[in-house]
Amino acid sequence: MPTITAFKSSPDRGMGLARDMPVRWAFEEVGQPYDVRLVSFTEMKEPPHLRVNPFGQIPTYEDGELATFESGAIVFHIAESHSGLLPTDKIARANAISWMFAALNTVEPPIVERDYVKYFEEGKSWQGERFTMVDERIRNRLDQLAAWFGGANWLVGTFSAADILMIHALRRLEGSGILEDYPTFRDYIARGTERPAYKRAFEAQYAVFSRSSSSD
Amino acid sequence: MPTITAFKSSPDRGMGLARDMPVRWAFEEVGQPYDVRLVSFTEMKEPPHLRVNPFGQIPTYEDGELATFESGAIVFHIAESHSGLLPTDKIARANAISWMFAALNTVEPPIVERDYVKYFEEGKSWQGERFTMVDERIRNRLDQLAAWFGGANWLVGTFSAADILMIHALRRLEGSGILEDYPTFRDYIARGTERPAYKRAFEAQYAVFSRSSSSD
Repeated sequence: MPTITAFKSSPDRGMGLARDMPVRWAFEEVGQPYDVRLVSFTEMKEPPHLRVNPFGQIPTYEDGELATFESGAIVFHIAESHSGLLPTDKIARANAISWMFAALNTVEPPIVERDYVKYFEEGKSWQGERFTMVDERIRNRLDQLAAWFGGANWLVGTFSAADILMIHALRRLEGSGILEDYPTFRDYIARGTERPAYKRAFEAQYAVFSRSSSSD
Repeated sequence: MPTITAFKSSPDRGMGLARDMPVRWAFEEVGQPYDVRLVSFTEMKEPPHLRVNPFGQIPTYEDGELATFESGAIVFHIAESHSGLLPTDKIARANAISWMFAALNTVEPPIVERDYVKYFEEGKSWQGERFTMVDERIRNRLDQLAAWFGGANWLVGTFSAADILMIHALRRLEGSGILEDYPTFRDYIARGTERPAYKRAFEAQYAVFSRSSSSD
């Protein structure tokens, strides 16, 4: 059975925004049981973890001889090894893979940058101006994505691994006030998070938070 | 023959830092001829281009019925459709794919952010402080990557698509003064850029710049 790593104490306090969440979701969609090894912030920076993830991040993925990292790559590996997360048609499959990369390399970066403004530029005189600048970058991407989306349910016709990564990226905007201006994405996120597989994954990561906070 | 798009007037003035470069390099490595359609900044934001790339960026990739986008995904598509850019061993292949995602989603984002500081925060009183902050994020990633790299030549044993994406990301630091502190990456970039396939790709994109600047 594959084993992934996740935060022993998730900084998001059980909101399911850490990067083990898309991997858990992918496992649940394809019905693949998995184990989770929880790691502390100290353990993440120590040699045994760094040998699997040189950047000291979660999640990692270990299964027999394979020990690898990067949530996008792990989701892709799960999608490639099971049916249900990538279309079988060659054209649709290539498009789904394009959207996986687009979620991580085009849509997500300004969203992650917003967290840097929020947490690392707090107290700076220019934090407000930076929020304005980065929010403009985010809205530009969301406008383009919404225009393309139109009335579609999913990125490439049927639900795919690309939706897992895109919805995960968009959910990081919850609480920012930005999603409220995009009913397209409010509905899209709701469609994703109402899936039984999402709910099981969410509960599993939430249980880690509950246990860790009750033992505080 | 596949057709990609590239900038009619590249903002990097022929330095090969635009995202058509990794795609050209991948084509050259596998010996796949390709056509290039040059697009202006105006054309990139117009419906025909947006139908292929909703974010109005280059490159796109069109081949028969397949019309797709995202440089990482295009490099992966080329690597999957030809031999030579992904290991055939299953474990090594999965690791190479992890490094493709790591190049784009872990190493590259702070490097791209540095360009935002440089170009969009020029004249701001806080630009210097922001450079310090983002350079620390970049150096943290480079320290981790260098520690992992050790004396290796390539990310996963033999040259792969992951090296194309990683070297492209690292090359964006040329001129920043940061690479000078990392002989590991100076040597790694040199190994990549000395490859005949890289040189052909570089010359091809440079020729576009030469022609466009002579017709200015």
